[in-house]
Amino acid sequence: MPEVIFPLDSSKKFEDQEKVGHNRWHPEIPPVATVKPGDSFRVHCREWFDGAIVNDDSADDILNAPLKTVHKLSGPFRVEGAKPGDLLIVDILDVGPIPGEDSGPLAGQGWGYTGIFAKRNGGGFLTDQFPGAYKAIWDFRGQIATSRHVPGVSFAGLIHPGLMGTAPSAELLATWNRREQALIDTDPNRVPPLALPPEPEFAVLGSLPESEYARVAGEAARTAPPRENGGNQDIKNLSKGTRVFYPVFVDGANLSLGDLHFSQGDGEITFCGAIEMGGFIDLHVDLIKDGMSTYGVSENAIFLPGTVDPRFSEWIAFSGTSVTLDGEQRYLDSHLSYQRACLHAIDYLTKFGYSPEQAYLILGAAPIEGRLSGVVDIPNACATVYIPTSIFDFDVRPSASGPAQIDPGPGAPHSAG
Amino acid sequence: MPEVIFPLDSSKKFEDQEKVGHNRWHPEIPPVATVKPGDSFRVHCREWFDGAIVNDDSADDILNAPLKTVHKLSGPFRVEGAKPGDLLIVDILDVGPIPGEDSGPLAGQGWGYTGIFAKRNGGGFLTDQFPGAYKAIWDFRGQIATSRHVPGVSFAGLIHPGLMGTAPSAELLATWNRREQALIDTDPNRVPPLALPPEPEFAVLGSLPESEYARVAGEAARTAPPRENGGNQDIKNLSKGTRVFYPVFVDGANLSLGDLHFSQGDGEITFCGAIEMGGFIDLHVDLIKDGMSTYGVSENAIFLPGTVDPRFSEWIAFSGTSVTLDGEQRYLDSHLSYQRACLHAIDYLTKFGYSPEQAYLILGAAPIEGRLSGVVDIPNACATVYIPTSIFDFDVRPSASGPAQIDPGPGAPHSAG
Amino acid sequence: MPEVIFPLDSSKKFEDQEKVGHNRWHPEIPPVATVKPGDSFRVHCREWFDGAIVNDDSADDILNAPLKTVHKLSGPFRVEGAKPGDLLIVDILDVGPIPGEDSGPLAGQGWGYTGIFAKRNGGGFLTDQFPGAYKAIWDFRGQIATSRHVPGVSFAGLIHPGLMGTAPSAELLATWNRREQALIDTDPNRVPPLALPPEPEFAVLGSLPESEYARVAGEAARTAPPRENGGNQDIKNLSKGTRVFYPVFVDGANLSLGDLHFSQGDGEITFCGAIEMGGFIDLHVDLIKDGMSTYGVSENAIFLPGTVDPRFSEWIAFSGTSVTLDGEQRYLDSHLSYQRACLHAIDYLTKFGYSPEQAYLILGAAPIEGRLSGVVDIPNACATVYIPTSIFDFDVRPSASGPAQIDPGPGAPHSAG
Amino acid sequence: MPEVIFPLDSSKKFEDQEKVGHNRWHPEIPPVATVKPGDSFRVHCREWFDGAIVNDDSADDILNAPLKTVHKLSGPFRVEGAKPGDLLIVDILDVGPIPGEDSGPLAGQGWGYTGIFAKRNGGGFLTDQFPGAYKAIWDFRGQIATSRHVPGVSFAGLIHPGLMGTAPSAELLATWNRREQALIDTDPNRVPPLALPPEPEFAVLGSLPESEYARVAGEAARTAPPRENGGNQDIKNLSKGTRVFYPVFVDGANLSLGDLHFSQGDGEITFCGAIEMGGFIDLHVDLIKDGMSTYGVSENAIFLPGTVDPRFSEWIAFSGTSVTLDGEQRYLDSHLSYQRACLHAIDYLTKFGYSPEQAYLILGAAPIEGRLSGVVDIPNACATVYIPTSIFDFDVRPSASGPAQIDPGPGAPHSAG
Repeated sequence: MPEVIFPLDSSKKFEDQEKVGHNRWHPEIPPVATVKPGDSFRVHCREWFDGAIVNDDSADDILNAPLKTVHKLSGPFRVEGAKPGDLLIVDILDVGPIPGEDSGPLAGQGWGYTGIFAKRNGGGFLTDQFPGAYKAIWDFRGQIATSRHVPGVSFAGLIHPGLMGTAPSAELLATWNRREQALIDTDPNRVPPLALPPEPEFAVLGSLPESEYARVAGEAARTAPPRENGGNQDIKNLSKGTRVFYPVFVDGANLSLGDLHFSQGDGEITFCGAIEMGGFIDLHVDLIKDGMSTYGVSENAIFLPGTVDPRFSEWIAFSGTSVTLDGEQRYLDSHLSYQRACLHAIDYLTKFGYSPEQAYLILGAAPIEGRLSGVVDIPNACATVYIPTSIFDFDVRPSASGPAQIDPGPGAPHSAG
Repeated sequence: MPEVIFPLDSSKKFEDQEKVGHNRWHPEIPPVATVKPGDSFRVHCREWFDGAIVNDDSADDILNAPLKTVHKLSGPFRVEGAKPGDLLIVDILDVGPIPGEDSGPLAGQGWGYTGIFAKRNGGGFLTDQFPGAYKAIWDFRGQIATSRHVPGVSFAGLIHPGLMGTAPSAELLATWNRREQALIDTDPNRVPPLALPPEPEFAVLGSLPESEYARVAGEAARTAPPRENGGNQDIKNLSKGTRVFYPVFVDGANLSLGDLHFSQGDGEITFCGAIEMGGFIDLHVDLIKDGMSTYGVSENAIFLPGTVDPRFSEWIAFSGTSVTLDGEQRYLDSHLSYQRACLHAIDYLTKFGYSPEQAYLILGAAPIEGRLSGVVDIPNACATVYIPTSIFDFDVRPSASGPAQIDPGPGAPHSAG
Repeated sequence: MPEVIFPLDSSKKFEDQEKVGHNRWHPEIPPVATVKPGDSFRVHCREWFDGAIVNDDSADDILNAPLKTVHKLSGPFRVEGAKPGDLLIVDILDVGPIPGEDSGPLAGQGWGYTGIFAKRNGGGFLTDQFPGAYKAIWDFRGQIATSRHVPGVSFAGLIHPGLMGTAPSAELLATWNRREQALIDTDPNRVPPLALPPEPEFAVLGSLPESEYARVAGEAARTAPPRENGGNQDIKNLSKGTRVFYPVFVDGANLSLGDLHFSQGDGEITFCGAIEMGGFIDLHVDLIKDGMSTYGVSENAIFLPGTVDPRFSEWIAFSGTSVTLDGEQRYLDSHLSYQRACLHAIDYLTKFGYSPEQAYLILGAAPIEGRLSGVVDIPNACATVYIPTSIFDFDVRPSASGPAQIDPGPGAPHSAG
Repeated sequence: MPEVIFPLDSSKKFEDQEKVGHNRWHPEIPPVATVKPGDSFRVHCREWFDGAIVNDDSADDILNAPLKTVHKLSGPFRVEGAKPGDLLIVDILDVGPIPGEDSGPLAGQGWGYTGIFAKRNGGGFLTDQFPGAYKAIWDFRGQIATSRHVPGVSFAGLIHPGLMGTAPSAELLATWNRREQALIDTDPNRVPPLALPPEPEFAVLGSLPESEYARVAGEAARTAPPRENGGNQDIKNLSKGTRVFYPVFVDGANLSLGDLHFSQGDGEITFCGAIEMGGFIDLHVDLIKDGMSTYGVSENAIFLPGTVDPRFSEWIAFSGTSVTLDGEQRYLDSHLSYQRACLHAIDYLTKFGYSPEQAYLILGAAPIEGRLSGVVDIPNACATVYIPTSIFDFDVRPSASGPAQIDPGPGAPHSAG
């Protein structure tokens, strides 16, 4: 086990730890630790809501999830010798739930959760169809997840960090703030909002001096979106064995990460759609000097995915096109196409006895694949969603004998607010 | 070999064959043949432009590709006993280039082509960056494709039909025409157009009586977009061994298909982005009576993909977010995110010596995977594109020693018009 | 389709064809055709018994299978410029049943067979437990095989040539005859025999001049065993896309091949254990000059397996050790261990309703994997056999609810003689 | 993390731990802990030689490895309610090196070793060709192993327990002793021996009362061979996620396990051929009452392998037949065939610059696959060995340009004794 350079004590809040991380992006947040190219090290990660979501059968906590407090990030970690223009190589050596703690009140202690956010609290991919708040608790047994709220499915976790990235430069941060505010300004009162501006309330900025706090908190970017620095990419395939290359924008690179997922489907469609948890991650870092221009990687992350994630050979797939549920034709809108594909999958699963919310939660949490199948056939983009058939305890394929019927049990906890 | 119920003679034009197919969707196009549930049969398919694109080193044919003439479809095939409300099960038993003809003037005779369409002729996924016309010819050796226009890559074909579907009902057709015209009406003079309205010119309607031709040609839907009946889904994974379930909208189902691809990347991003070819397909059909309501599959196709397509264990992946090249922030636009991911991949490949067009053609034709990685992290959707590393003759991974340099050769033929 | 350089007419016997192949190994058998390095070409192959095994419900033909007549090989094909010491590169571009003939009396015309040979006619891997003759007929639908004699299983064929190799030199042939006769001499009257000596009766030697026939037929090696030249290796993974490297022992290499299998389990354990058929194979050849010494490949074939064979993610596996059924401990005998693993698998499958013979036939024909798991743990070698679970129509895994029961039907035809 | 029911302190010898395991099989060895069906629990495992092999550049420790002291097993674990005739279900939830200790003197503390045993100390699969002692030290970085003694290779570990099994009944133990002694008696002075009889010296028997020690130590079976109870099967695919079913021979089942491997090739051919280490394993147990007769599983283990082991799509494979190096023909000897296949692979790898011992160590430690390809083609069995090409830093495939040359470095430490 590599040295723990960012420890977390599960009995304490994120802000009360020996080393305090952050929940905003800003170049001035001081590094909590320094590593050298070639180093391996372990980092603890807190689940993104720092314990606000609990292991029970109510969705009230999801309904009132404190979005201004997220994401609880570990870091920044300074990499010696990293300069703007370099590529930072990050190898994910290992990643998992909180080691040595398989029960307790904190997600990652043997369990995790998936939430459907209420529309008034951010919503999810299908918020128009699912405006309420729902929750599912998943139990871990080794690498297998099952849920008392979603019977009939079990699967090996495709464990990964939802969020990892380097610090933005001041210039890059300014670009983010400018372009996101411009978007917000097009419909400032929208529910849910179009984007999230800097929010000083609940900002955690590591060991930033008190004197700088107000200014920096007023500038620092929210962590929800992925951006040029990687960030909250929610790429389920950043699993163990993956090598990621990040652009470096500030001296030392200042790598931060968090938002661990025990599993997630492509898209993380219920918003809090992965199986959220705290845990640990072991990393190895290195540099390609001047790699940004050498490889043309200057405003995105690239990666070589690992080869030990769960393997499936059989799938059932659903297609969708860019026509709204109301029958309106949209022009090559893959986002909409994927929504329609997911809704078709949900409709299908309900025929086996699932509630629509249970089906939606499965799509959020299980290792489904979302594909951009056709993007040029005007006016309809075609997206597809692939569900591994072996995650179900029953035969999920269509046949002349009709769908098997599961016992959906009490269902996913719901809170209408 | 199952019985050939739709033969094509490679020496004759599509309209001059013994049995004539069609290139529009309409419920009244008469079936060319009838099959029974449980039957297996072979169908020949003509490449979508019926020979207009030739095996040479010019892109003039791509520049002037006659879009009103596409797609040349085999069918309709009437399935005895199929009624609206049923699900039609189609097993793809086999699919390949024109059997017994490995050289000749027709795509599918041992070769195929990938085109980048000019912006004024429909464009492609990245038409703003690639407004001109380009072409690559691919040679087949067994299941392996290589191209004199794109050196350094070779891969096993993921052979599939780009287009397959059932006939729409009159009501469904009317819905299509209504909603697509409404979209066109929002910007009727756009280049390229938002959608393609019915086009009597060059309409081929099988054995429809002369007396009905004008009316039906004026109503019949163009075949470019995928719709509720399946259609031009361009799903690369509809490969050998796949079972597809289509909704049935008319008595007899009236299945049609065509647009065979020797290979394609997710999205078919260059528009004519697959390796286009004619060939054969062997199908087996069956029915699930009343399956549309039983399984909730009423306005989309679902499928169980085959298990004999090419297998890769190592990939290089690129992410993109929904910020335009001009720096404008868009709201959760996965279509844009995938464009950016593809552009990042193209930039990367140019560092190895490829021209941007060669890189673009690789993404269109090779079995890349396009994924919807994050769709809820406002305001940025995250899409990723995965390229199998083993398709390259050289090591395509980033390293401290910098990119290997290929000899790009004369490059992809270009026609500026 | 590459040029057919060795055509077969399904209505004629192997010896009555336009070009006549051979069924023995000898350096003096004249080439039937010459190809050049870089050439692609098609070869037809006759099933190994040339039609003696028929599509019916009796095993009399298996009981009396004419072993002296096999294998019916296509070739030899001379490769221009090949010299002893070179490596011959053979790419398997495509391979399949008889094209364009999906019904008829010849295996490969839409069907194939698996036989359990009677002990007095050669036996199989488990001949002490299965001394009688049995047969199963398999029907092909696309790449899928099913059998009326073995219900409840279906699988995609892992199509491959059971036999391919270069001609031996006179010296190598002499070595074979010497060492095999020495083995036979240790127990000359054994049933089944230890090895098969040269057998002039039924020898087919292509276009060898009459004057040489008697001498050559008396020297020529039987084709049953694999040897330094490749030969009857029965490696199921020599599927489409595979590249094989053979040592060259005579000028021109003189490549021959045959014994096509629609599918086979590792070991081909029922002797005639694959799904036997005739068909076609498309090859591409090239040379590595002096490759035998350069790569140390002088008395075996090496290969790069293809990547489009059927893919499975879930298996049930059985182990065996080198203790005989009578309880005798043998020393590190992996052959025995694999027998015991297969017998354990057969016992297990009978609990689901299969007859032992049906289970045995499944292991012969389906794409099972046989592994040498432990070979050093004195005195017990450990071998394992892996069966893909998805080939069964039912859940084949052990559970508290006990095994599902299939209807075994009339079972596999049996002939006691 | 499940509760640790068998802890090990890395600073103490195996016999000095709080709970003491065992290194012989006997029904009377008392359970160290009791679990219930449905329980999950963690077990620590000591590497098989309890620290006798060290992390240095000498093979003296391998030369003198104390074989009478192995294997250091954790257990026995009594399962409440288990009765003879039941099947014990064991789920491998997780398995890995010593948690929290990534450096130190004990294999499993961030490193492991592979040894080639000297012929006079047991030898290995190819001991006639490799009679001396050799060693390679492997370093772990996450799930990746590399070795300073074997440059140019790195691979993800296929981590698994080499040994797991239930206690034999008195009757079964007597059977083992009887049949193994009978084998020894056929050549009692052979070097290496044919089998290992009970050996009181260095027997560790847990908490067995002193009064019974001498008798039990004189009866207890050695742990080297796999037998009816599972035992030292060295099946590399018993990786995380695997479910194993063991016959139960005594009340409580009395499960024991150990001999963890960070990786291993099929066969574990160098004898100490895996990457040996200590570590932890998390298990979940359950029962199928009377499962032995229900499923016909009475003298072997069966298993459903996990789906998260390392995945490869490209391999280079070598075949071998049952002819000895001296040219003697053996009858269908798959063991010999695999030896010849491995020797061919070793010859091949030396052409790239490896010493034969380095190549042999790669085959022992890397996730190679050993297959029984043909077992009926008298007189030659055909075995094949598949090596994943991506484990090499260079292109290991044959080509016209000849083999790349690695720098083999100082090579594998050797001790001739």
